[in-house]
Amino acid sequence: MELKSFIRDIPDFPAKGIIFRDVTPLLKNPAAFQKAIDEMTKILQDMKFDLIVSPEARGFIFGAALAYKLGKGLVPVRKPGKLPYKTVSIEYNLEYGTAQLHMHSDALQQGQRVIIVDDVLATGGTAAAIASLVKNVGGEVAGMCFLIELSYLSPREKLKDYDVRSVLVY
Amino acid sequence: MELKSFIRDIPDFPAKGIIFRDVTPLLKNPAAFQKAIDEMTKILQDMKFDLIVSPEARGFIFGAALAYKLGKGLVPVRKPGKLPYKTVSIEYNLEYGTAQLHMHSDALQQGQRVIIVDDVLATGGTAAAIASLVKNVGGEVAGMCFLIELSYLSPREKLKDYDVRSVLVY
Repeated sequence: MELKSFIRDIPDFPAKGIIFRDVTPLLKNPAAFQKAIDEMTKILQDMKFDLIVSPEARGFIFGAALAYKLGKGLVPVRKPGKLPYKTVSIEYNLEYGTAQLHMHSDALQQGQRVIIVDDVLATGGTAAAIASLVKNVGGEVAGMCFLIELSYLSPREKLKDYDVRSVLVY
Repeated sequence: MELKSFIRDIPDFPAKGIIFRDVTPLLKNPAAFQKAIDEMTKILQDMKFDLIVSPEARGFIFGAALAYKLGKGLVPVRKPGKLPYKTVSIEYNLEYGTAQLHMHSDALQQGQRVIIVDDVLATGGTAAAIASLVKNVGGEVAGMCFLIELSYLSPREKLKDYDVRSVLVY
């Protein structure tokens, strides 16, 4: 089974000139979704970590399935106004526009090792911002794991300090 | 393990007079998260369905973990402007304000049986809206499954036509 055949290219979404990699055909196919999670598990095999940190919304899908499978906790990173308790936040630039992300300030214990999981690694801006949030509350970034990496956007330039792994590279 | 002890009450969020049931302490505890998903699996044991339909953002967490565990596909329901392909949409009232939800128009095949999964069943407005979307594209609602049901908001009044199941009732 070729996972890339379940990812649909949508030109000019969400903005002119961007090819959006739509994972919904993969999600609705049980075998493809299982394989995606199993492949992410494989590339994480040697990584030691306590928690998975994932941004809303599609990151929750892959982070939650992996957390369940691997018996880890899940920490959600969200847009402003969504998390109900005290938060730490960061503002950053992304592929199209700017954004702010929040994480509960009690989400991690000092020294806990986390991996950051998302569906797509694009410019690396979101992942770098999440890594800052993790360090801000005393956590350690063990690594990052993505289903899809858009290598033509050179995300690894922003993530030189991290162990970055992805299943599918475009 | 008492799952309710991992759910944090936040008074007056997101609006005055509302007690928000915060699942983030449950998510970050591996045993509690596993148990939540396993309990949802248990109450779905006799239900026959093809796909799980879940709304963003917290619904993705429970829908994805269940979909992975049960070997089902996952169909995301999203806010306007988030799904990249052709969509069907519905506008509806929720606990605080109004909202619009979208689903890809090719998300389901004619006659496919789905369950709707979310973290919290509050007024039932979101679940009823998603059920309309499912029927709109030719799907059949086999049932609905929630981790938390806020019975004091009488959600089942809006959902009389459906098989509604929840793990924790407040």
